[in-house]
Amino acid sequence: MSPQRSNHLGRRATKLLFSRPMAIPLAAFSLRIRARIQNKPGSFAALATVIGEAGGSLVGIEIVETDGATVTRDLVVFCASEGHAATVEAATRAVENVAVLEVEDRTFGVHERGKLSIDAKRPLRDRDDLSMAYTPGVARVCLAIADQADLAHRYTMKANAVAVVTDGTAVLGLGNIGPEAALPVMEGKAVLFKAFAGVDAVPVCLKVSSPDELVETVQRMEPMFGGINLEDIAAPHCFDVEARLADTLSIPVFHDDQHGTAVVVLAALRNACKLVGKDLADLRIVLSGAGAAGVAITKILMSAGASDIVAADRKGAIYKGREGLDPSKQWLADHANPEGRSGTLSGVLRGADVFIGVSGPGLLGRADLETMAPGSIVFALANPVPEVLPEEAEGLVAVMATGRSDYPNQINNVLCFPGIFRGALDAGATRVTENMKLAAADAIAAAVAPGQLHADEIVPSVFAPGVAYRVAEAVAAAARADGVTRESASPS
Amino acid sequence: MSPQRSNHLGRRATKLLFSRPMAIPLAAFSLRIRARIQNKPGSFAALATVIGEAGGSLVGIEIVETDGATVTRDLVVFCASEGHAATVEAATRAVENVAVLEVEDRTFGVHERGKLSIDAKRPLRDRDDLSMAYTPGVARVCLAIADQADLAHRYTMKANAVAVVTDGTAVLGLGNIGPEAALPVMEGKAVLFKAFAGVDAVPVCLKVSSPDELVETVQRMEPMFGGINLEDIAAPHCFDVEARLADTLSIPVFHDDQHGTAVVVLAALRNACKLVGKDLADLRIVLSGAGAAGVAITKILMSAGASDIVAADRKGAIYKGREGLDPSKQWLADHANPEGRSGTLSGVLRGADVFIGVSGPGLLGRADLETMAPGSIVFALANPVPEVLPEEAEGLVAVMATGRSDYPNQINNVLCFPGIFRGALDAGATRVTENMKLAAADAIAAAVAPGQLHADEIVPSVFAPGVAYRVAEAVAAAARADGVTRESASPS
Repeated sequence: MSPQRSNHLGRRATKLLFSRPMAIPLAAFSLRIRARIQNKPGSFAALATVIGEAGGSLVGIEIVETDGATVTRDLVVFCASEGHAATVEAATRAVENVAVLEVEDRTFGVHERGKLSIDAKRPLRDRDDLSMAYTPGVARVCLAIADQADLAHRYTMKANAVAVVTDGTAVLGLGNIGPEAALPVMEGKAVLFKAFAGVDAVPVCLKVSSPDELVETVQRMEPMFGGINLEDIAAPHCFDVEARLADTLSIPVFHDDQHGTAVVVLAALRNACKLVGKDLADLRIVLSGAGAAGVAITKILMSAGASDIVAADRKGAIYKGREGLDPSKQWLADHANPEGRSGTLSGVLRGADVFIGVSGPGLLGRADLETMAPGSIVFALANPVPEVLPEEAEGLVAVMATGRSDYPNQINNVLCFPGIFRGALDAGATRVTENMKLAAADAIAAAVAPGQLHADEIVPSVFAPGVAYRVAEAVAAAARADGVTRESASPS
Repeated sequence: MSPQRSNHLGRRATKLLFSRPMAIPLAAFSLRIRARIQNKPGSFAALATVIGEAGGSLVGIEIVETDGATVTRDLVVFCASEGHAATVEAATRAVENVAVLEVEDRTFGVHERGKLSIDAKRPLRDRDDLSMAYTPGVARVCLAIADQADLAHRYTMKANAVAVVTDGTAVLGLGNIGPEAALPVMEGKAVLFKAFAGVDAVPVCLKVSSPDELVETVQRMEPMFGGINLEDIAAPHCFDVEARLADTLSIPVFHDDQHGTAVVVLAALRNACKLVGKDLADLRIVLSGAGAAGVAITKILMSAGASDIVAADRKGAIYKGREGLDPSKQWLADHANPEGRSGTLSGVLRGADVFIGVSGPGLLGRADLETMAPGSIVFALANPVPEVLPEEAEGLVAVMATGRSDYPNQINNVLCFPGIFRGALDAGATRVTENMKLAAADAIAAAVAPGQLHADEIVPSVFAPGVAYRVAEAVAAAARADGVTRESASPS
């Protein structure tokens, strides 16, 4: 589960995270402080000392300019929260022989005027270039596509472009903050698409007031895109939106919050099984969280051979016969939990091999983990605060993963979505099949070499080179095998 | 008028252009021929001779590789049409001692996999970069925008992004070829936006079945964009679409086919007036073509002080009282032609100072031009074949302009739209006012220095450096003067 998947958390927990002075200074709360420092012994040391005493972490120093009497430097200081950053700034302003000229919040700096640039792939040097890329030459390409529509996949951006679509109804853990406020996330996703898989991704944040409008709008946008990545759309309407788009469009549609998470969970679970010597088909799995990700995880684990999965929500286990279930929970009651277990989360966890949490912070304690079967596997994916922290689980579980980058085994969607779409585009896929997702999971799992496999390394690092291209190759092969490519549709 | 503005022409004339072997070889019909040539005296000369005899123009030669026995070269050959290119290719394949390895249609090559690349503006080197551009840092930017919506204009792509929107109903002179086939043109436009004014433009080709759907879809897409450039939308519904979007969105909306053309026509006319020593307010102007561009030209000329404008369609002059006028022609009848002139185009042209054609090929002859007032000005903007060719008009008119790049005085929208949007974005404009358009026209006219001004140089070259930025500055100043910037709306 990527760091943004904590739809269950809501604003309260997020505020907690962002306002509470935490122990660890982070880049996300870093400042660039430009200071003119008198050229007197000890001046810089005094500044550095004050930053350290205030709890800031001085991670970078650059000289901007010098004259005889002063040195102007840019200092990069990691802080632990916005409030903490303000404290650090105030402390630096009080240092003798130092004039603070400028303070930049580096995270906002990174977002200044947006994070994307749209450029010509080939230079436009003269009238001849213009006459090919634009009129009159472009008319020849237009006519060719008008005559044979599939040529759009070859001679336009459709060949390599994916829309990152949201209605802003479930953004990060922040809830329904709307399409404008969702845009920085979609731009970030586009950055990742390019960085990891060379995909040109276009943020599409839509001001719509119903799932019907969302579906209809994306349908109207099909001409420009080779794929649709749905993102941060609230459950339960995300299920219906994805299904209707997949049914009506002739390009792949993929709701990352559901399937990206599910694919990486399966990859991690395959490797965890190798470590503890258990077979996926034999596992007793307990899942906390019955939202979009929970349903998708259940589906992919069942496709991969798991059968005993008990999902739980705040009221406890979801079983056939429980009253008042919404459609996604009803699906879980009907398809998972074959033994019809009921009771609390703690109750059903007794004797389980695997716990997967996509729910909320701090739901489990050591007492719960002690009741699990030997060789237990715990994926506590709530973000930013997991269901149980790795330090609490220490010694009680065989394999532990979270959604966070500051612990081992980060279950992050970015291991999946760039490669899924790279593969789908490369194969000319018209949809994303179950086999393509399973192939992606296997490729991610296989990206950890047998010699590397370890309880602290069940998934590759986000920055491990080439993972997306391994995933892409596997996904493209699965698309061809399933006959869902444009070539297989028209074998001419 | 840019080369693509020939909605009046239709497929027939375009086919004529693209299939008829014309005299002039062009980049738009060029081939790259890769040939392995035996290392024997005269082999290359024989190949070059054959190309020349077939009418191809050999404009570039590069060595790809050599071995003892052969030299492999890439030859760039301009041809005059698709048929002509096939003839040239066949001729090269028949040359002795030459093996043609590969032939690429360079125009299609330029469009391979699309013309745009979407990239991160700043590198993503490590986890710290990721934690600022994406989670957790990005959530801080999202919350800031959720709290204060206007920050989207500062911290997202909205700061610099324009949608190039079409429904594909009137693409180039090709007619209603649909949104997929329109995409190469919109990508080309995006290339120009970046090249000339640093604007990030996103092609938006919409599969909609009514103007209502088009309006509604663009309204839903407002969150991502700082401006909407409408493009290649058929009249008359383009008028209504533009007006409704301008009224409901809080970002600038500009239908380039109308106003881009109109702005550049006004710029050209201002400079032409200087050359012939006439005043805009005194001109008798005849306009052929009562579509989107014709109405927009009439409006801007009247805003600039012209009053005696007679528009004509195929049936002749449009005057108050003529029967069966559609809404745009009715507008022309009601607002222009103050003396209520009627009769044929040739009839109303008698004694006129200015002819502006945005209609169809070859409507005027020398006999018509002879009846115009002394010092006559003729802008024959139908594309690709103008109302009258410059060679036919020679000696009869004082100033002549067309929409074509192969004659002097090309009236090309690209002189206008990049600067209009650059200026609007820079000023934080919420709409495009009449004064902003007038300011753009004046800036384009002023980009031809008094010393340069000449009957063959009444507008700057498309490639003249800095025109867009001069236009932008003038447009931004006009936006501020008109009080249509976000700052003026909320002066906090």
